[in-house]
Amino acid sequence: MSASKMLDEVRQQPAALQRTLKSELAQIKELKRLVSAKKPRFIVLVARGTSDNAAQFGRYLLEITTGIPVSLSAPSIFTLYKAKVSLADSLVVAISQSGESTDTNLVLERARQQGALTVGITNESSSTLARLADYAFLVRAGKEKSVAATKTYTGQLLALYLLAYALGGSIRVEDLRRLPDWTASALKLEDQVAEAAQRYRFMDHALVVGRGLNYSNAFELALKLMETCYVVAERFSSADLLHGPIAMLEAGFPVFLFAPPGVTWPGLRQLIARLSEIETETLIVTDESNRRAVKQIGGEKLAHKVCIPVDLAHKDGPTDLFTPIPYIVPAQLFAGWLAHVKGLDPDRPRSLKKVTQTM
Amino acid sequence: MSASKMLDEVRQQPAALQRTLKSELAQIKELKRLVSAKKPRFIVLVARGTSDNAAQFGRYLLEITTGIPVSLSAPSIFTLYKAKVSLADSLVVAISQSGESTDTNLVLERARQQGALTVGITNESSSTLARLADYAFLVRAGKEKSVAATKTYTGQLLALYLLAYALGGSIRVEDLRRLPDWTASALKLEDQVAEAAQRYRFMDHALVVGRGLNYSNAFELALKLMETCYVVAERFSSADLLHGPIAMLEAGFPVFLFAPPGVTWPGLRQLIARLSEIETETLIVTDESNRRAVKQIGGEKLAHKVCIPVDLAHKDGPTDLFTPIPYIVPAQLFAGWLAHVKGLDPDRPRSLKKVTQTM
Repeated sequence: MSASKMLDEVRQQPAALQRTLKSELAQIKELKRLVSAKKPRFIVLVARGTSDNAAQFGRYLLEITTGIPVSLSAPSIFTLYKAKVSLADSLVVAISQSGESTDTNLVLERARQQGALTVGITNESSSTLARLADYAFLVRAGKEKSVAATKTYTGQLLALYLLAYALGGSIRVEDLRRLPDWTASALKLEDQVAEAAQRYRFMDHALVVGRGLNYSNAFELALKLMETCYVVAERFSSADLLHGPIAMLEAGFPVFLFAPPGVTWPGLRQLIARLSEIETETLIVTDESNRRAVKQIGGEKLAHKVCIPVDLAHKDGPTDLFTPIPYIVPAQLFAGWLAHVKGLDPDRPRSLKKVTQTM
Repeated sequence: MSASKMLDEVRQQPAALQRTLKSELAQIKELKRLVSAKKPRFIVLVARGTSDNAAQFGRYLLEITTGIPVSLSAPSIFTLYKAKVSLADSLVVAISQSGESTDTNLVLERARQQGALTVGITNESSSTLARLADYAFLVRAGKEKSVAATKTYTGQLLALYLLAYALGGSIRVEDLRRLPDWTASALKLEDQVAEAAQRYRFMDHALVVGRGLNYSNAFELALKLMETCYVVAERFSSADLLHGPIAMLEAGFPVFLFAPPGVTWPGLRQLIARLSEIETETLIVTDESNRRAVKQIGGEKLAHKVCIPVDLAHKDGPTDLFTPIPYIVPAQLFAGWLAHVKGLDPDRPRSLKKVTQTM
């Protein structure tokens, strides 16, 4: 069943989430104290690669649940242009698996010098990032041996939920406690996904679509397809897709779509209708709560559905609030198995190392 | 020489920029008054499609020249999730060619209700956006008939320079006055670019790389390749590329790279060395000021250069400050001529309309 370290690490996620949640909840009061003393006017998230995809999730989660405006930092503005950006009023959050990303750490350092409150999210307790930040979330995912990040991504998402909670956002701890089980439910799809991957043996390009809280998952699946399967994978929100890129689609074009219940569904439903006309080859990730809706619009043309066998609709707030972590799991499994089917090694992609230093 | 309305409109850019600059400078005092009364703590840019690429440029330009933190808005947070984001301290800038993008306008309206200062950048003086905003920049590009936006993109970039100027950023009006001539210099490349496009007749995927102030141009060329040539075109900064996506590249993979003089050049030079090892098919856009540097590192393998025949190095501030408008011109010409070579109509891409409404 193994196939790769990447797939092993995908399977470790329920336990990793459980561990992270337990230890981080034990110390979250300290963060609550820091943010209520600071009252940040805006939040800046800074990251690269998979961690930047987690930041993309954070921008949606934090604005939606706390109402504080969020910006995704462009590190080169600090590292190359040496700009003096006014961050005194802000909360600056750096996300890095290794905690040794030089440009990310430099932004955090500049922010600190200016009086910003700084938070780090990292897998490494003794890293530069953990030391630099006023407060550090530790993702207790255990060593990530595969170059392709998986369990650290979901761990970073969990830390962002905890950050939203500490900022007074509408997040309940009892819901977070269910995330490991929901993730375990998503892992039950492995056999189905491994089987489905066979069909995509010769895929060399693809489009991944997500919206709102699942927009980051579109980036993350696309990145996994690029780095582990060497597929030229585009990623767009359904809205941005309609503003131009949809022209490139034609019959048989492989499209992957995250389709949770809730406010993003009507737009996605319309998009799926357009895709059916174009006759793209569409694979939809959903859960039990939206299974019927996806089936109804799909007709015969939507043969490919991956449905997480649990009802993930959140009743009190955004319906899709807790879908992003479970939804990325079948996508990770798909990338891991597709690499296997293609005869590639997802743990050591060509041209890549685990810690990437950029100027 | 015509080939398409799109190419006609590309050629109209020097005159359009001249017109816009003249009329907008005449009223900029009013904006200076508004921003000095407001003193915004942060800036939110909101847009879709090509206008969103202009916003991407704005985020770099405004942070670099004014030091005010900038966020690119995710409209669905307002339109779908109905979040109450605290924008009272902010300047909110909506960018839309037609001024009738419903989601963009809705964000501007919410911001206004909260007490934000609002600015619109549009081509249409009688549009909803021009009416809604506290201050409206009018891009005097004349009617844009091609669905593929070109002259409105450079007009929006110019408006963003004027906004930076009004905010007290380090922009001199006498430099802005040279932009139409620089753009005219870039247009002299048309024959060379039209010839080069022949080679790409069968290209079906590509990668576009830019960094810093030219990052938005990478998005814009990729969008033009997708919507007018149906090429699956990825866009990354050189830093993000190294964090994963570089694995998808192999010998012969078409790569387009914006390589201005200045702080982004050392990183791009390193990337080009990596690309030479992989033996990608690389085409580099540069100008006279960086010609020698590009030639030195390229050796024999970098056969494809497009060099704007004028020195664009800015002496007083970021060296690449005024490269983005001239640099997009050969890229627009390339997309327009490649569509022609492929027998496609860039003025009416399949599946697209000029005004796109999204939820």
